[in-house]
Amino acid sequence: MAKHDPTLDHVFTALGDPTRRAILTRLADGPKSVSDLAAPFDMALPSLMGHLKKLEAAGLIVSEKSGRVRSCALRPAAFAPAMDWLEAQRALWAGRLDRLDALVMTLADTKDD
Amino acid sequence: MAKHDPTLDHVFTALGDPTRRAILTRLADGPKSVSDLAAPFDMALPSLMGHLKKLEAAGLIVSEKSGRVRSCALRPAAFAPAMDWLEAQRALWAGRLDRLDALVMTLADTKDD
Repeated sequence: MAKHDPTLDHVFTALGDPTRRAILTRLADGPKSVSDLAAPFDMALPSLMGHLKKLEAAGLIVSEKSGRVRSCALRPAAFAPAMDWLEAQRALWAGRLDRLDALVMTLADTKDD
Repeated sequence: MAKHDPTLDHVFTALGDPTRRAILTRLADGPKSVSDLAAPFDMALPSLMGHLKKLEAAGLIVSEKSGRVRSCALRPAAFAPAMDWLEAQRALWAGRLDRLDALVMTLADTKDD
């Protein structure tokens, strides 16, 4: 069985929440302060901070405090394991379809003989 | 803000667990009975059934009972929203990099003038 990759657990679980996905989409445009990020959400600051913490634990964002302002930035590279896993699955299905095609061709050949 | 897509919540959350990912990888090869799926896992059947239930709720698998045997099959199409969301993020970063490139070119032009 494939080795367990705990990074994938964190990344996929972090992506499984609409607020966290919306934060990532907003950060795609460039780094933002926590208060900028909080503005469009009707949410208490501690809840938002909880989401940011999960995104940071998954490596999807980094945050940095400068004076009293904490800024968050996206880490696009951290999405790669999730993209790669999904691509690998797609390759497995494609391989299976190729084998089914080959089987159908073989059966057709046998019938022609 | 982007409309909330509850399907993405279910799909990403379902993918955030190593047992569930391993089940999906095994089903990539073709439908399997629950007992076949259970074999490589050192896990009580009710726990495995819980994972299968989450995968089915996310639409990633379908299951069907024939006599006393329940079989599970993959639904590759259900992975599409997750793949599409990740691709859309990649497009956003690419757009941002293009704008940064354009800015650097403009600054270089201004310096040349």
